[in-house]
Amino acid sequence: MDSETQSFETLISNNLSGRDLEEFNRIYFGRRDNHEVRVKESSAAAAREANFEIAAYAFPAKKEHTRPPRIVKVGIIQHSIPAPTDLPINDQKTAILEKVKKIIDVAGQEGVNILCFQELWNMPFAFCTREKQPWCEFAESAEEGQTTRFLRELAVKYAMVIVSSILERDEAHADILWNTAVVISDTGNVIGKHRKNHIPRVGDFNESNYYMEGNTGHPVFATRYGKIAINICFGRHHPLNWMMFGLNGADIVFNPSATIAADAGSEYMWNIEARNAAITNCYFTAAINRVGYEQFPNEFTSADGQPAHKDLGLFYGSSYFCGPDGVRCPGLSRNKDGLLIGVLDLNQNRQIRDRRCYYMTQRLPMYVESLSKVVELDYKPQVVHEKDGK
Amino acid sequence: MDSETQSFETLISNNLSGRDLEEFNRIYFGRRDNHEVRVKESSAAAAREANFEIAAYAFPAKKEHTRPPRIVKVGIIQHSIPAPTDLPINDQKTAILEKVKKIIDVAGQEGVNILCFQELWNMPFAFCTREKQPWCEFAESAEEGQTTRFLRELAVKYAMVIVSSILERDEAHADILWNTAVVISDTGNVIGKHRKNHIPRVGDFNESNYYMEGNTGHPVFATRYGKIAINICFGRHHPLNWMMFGLNGADIVFNPSATIAADAGSEYMWNIEARNAAITNCYFTAAINRVGYEQFPNEFTSADGQPAHKDLGLFYGSSYFCGPDGVRCPGLSRNKDGLLIGVLDLNQNRQIRDRRCYYMTQRLPMYVESLSKVVELDYKPQVVHEKDGK
Repeated sequence: MDSETQSFETLISNNLSGRDLEEFNRIYFGRRDNHEVRVKESSAAAAREANFEIAAYAFPAKKEHTRPPRIVKVGIIQHSIPAPTDLPINDQKTAILEKVKKIIDVAGQEGVNILCFQELWNMPFAFCTREKQPWCEFAESAEEGQTTRFLRELAVKYAMVIVSSILERDEAHADILWNTAVVISDTGNVIGKHRKNHIPRVGDFNESNYYMEGNTGHPVFATRYGKIAINICFGRHHPLNWMMFGLNGADIVFNPSATIAADAGSEYMWNIEARNAAITNCYFTAAINRVGYEQFPNEFTSADGQPAHKDLGLFYGSSYFCGPDGVRCPGLSRNKDGLLIGVLDLNQNRQIRDRRCYYMTQRLPMYVESLSKVVELDYKPQVVHEKDGK
Repeated sequence: MDSETQSFETLISNNLSGRDLEEFNRIYFGRRDNHEVRVKESSAAAAREANFEIAAYAFPAKKEHTRPPRIVKVGIIQHSIPAPTDLPINDQKTAILEKVKKIIDVAGQEGVNILCFQELWNMPFAFCTREKQPWCEFAESAEEGQTTRFLRELAVKYAMVIVSSILERDEAHADILWNTAVVISDTGNVIGKHRKNHIPRVGDFNESNYYMEGNTGHPVFATRYGKIAINICFGRHHPLNWMMFGLNGADIVFNPSATIAADAGSEYMWNIEARNAAITNCYFTAAINRVGYEQFPNEFTSADGQPAHKDLGLFYGSSYFCGPDGVRCPGLSRNKDGLLIGVLDLNQNRQIRDRRCYYMTQRLPMYVESLSKVVELDYKPQVVHEKDGK
């Protein structure tokens, strides 16, 4: 783990300086100055003590004549699992909750308004194993489970909206499982939940063996601090998933993920997809990935001809925010727990949308008509052959 | 112009080496080795002589049991305008054709199968002026105009499919104008044409004063070398435009563009959008931008409070290819003409689509239903308020 590159950003800052670094920042991040925001000394000290990274960046908007600024502090947390996966399920979960509580406390002290964790943050990402036991025992009621109860208390304490991605046990519907994001209000109430719309079938991501495509549509949650939505992990490859959240009015779309750096992994796409979504929909996105290695008791295979093994390889962290103009901030590290804070002026969304007109020019009625034809079983693609054009 | 950064890639290669450079390449481009392909010495010499850059990169696929490789050589050309914009229209156009012919000849000698230019390659990008005369005189018949005739000859000579983005004069429909890509077969026939679907209304891009949204749908052109489509410039901000070309079966989608580096420009998004399209649709994309400065006779304003001026700022070139897995090659420079060649094995598209299942998991029928509701005038967004969730 020590031999791992710390982050893409350190590759650059260790080697570039002066005008080259400015040009890199302009072309890569979209701005020469990252608008770093200082955190409290007590927060920095707590982060050192608990061995996690902390950083904050601002995304300002222009002043408007008719609206005050709508500044919201958003926190995202990436963390590794602290306990071995052969401990009893409850012990594993408690260890995670205890560890992450230290980061939540710092977020609370920094005045974070909305907080989101990585995908299935309260458990190891055990779907690589294809084993149903004991992993399914991590599942909980979205409304009344241990994790939601734990977070309700913190949400009230810090007047914080919390987005918690868990394995849901749907007790009202014959105990089936879902991959679900629970949105907890600053009042401690569950505002609602969203179930993952797109489920992977690739490599070690055997999630389709555990739960089905979500049945909750594309809800946007009206919180005290802004309208938010959650595009869970694999949904980031699906532009229509992102778009429906935008059309429903989301100011910020979180992408809690679990994705790996392995050879057939996603690391080089991590900067692309949540950013493209921000650009095309003119809203803020927050991309959050797990971090570290997770070792499982039994061997599994990855359907790639390689020998059986017991871990998925590195979850590369690198969580970041992107503005509605596509400008992003530096990400967290590839191999360490972290809290990243974005100070977002949500007024920027409409300013960019008015300027660029991407939604206004999207010609939705044309696409409704085209896609209605595509889904017909006898669809004939629009292909032009040479004889037609002569 | 000499003070301009030569390219994003040179910022890196001038400063990083060894393992840091490898890690940069892995995380940024998606592969440690760029698979550079050597061009002929005669091509390199011709490029030096005519002062343009030339580079080639391979995008291999795995061997299959049931299909031979489908390797196609694709060329993209970026170029600046060689003549002042106050010359007679015909002289300006002839100067461009003569200049670019030297690059086409090299592409032909390199065995390029499919060639595409930047947007409206045979004229300056004069829409910033909002002046109708003399710029509308650059318009031509797609089938019979000077530029198409010029290219037909070269297409036959080099057995090359050529995609030519021009200002079209639609003589069969009352002489109106379109922004049109003409696809010329290796036989010299015009296979067909596609008209730009999404027209910008932002900053200096006053194109909506000149032509309307295209009426040709999302055609894919079945050429001898593969199925191709063209997403013209501003359409790259529209994921549904990219998607319809994919659903119609495109192997390669070209994005001929004209876009600038200015403060409110697009340079930091250039690596994002054509790449995201390649990823989400599992096809090859080729992003092509104009290069250089274009000075106009009369002042114009940019609706940004800045003083009137006579040029748009730098068109930053940086043209590149991206594979269906999201792996890209280094781009051409920011300030020089260039020919970039991609040696693409089109078999990779289906291999990636089978592996990642993005189309299989895209749930189109759900989105047809959702979007059908969105386009209704009385659409009620799916917003969850706290009271609902208690």
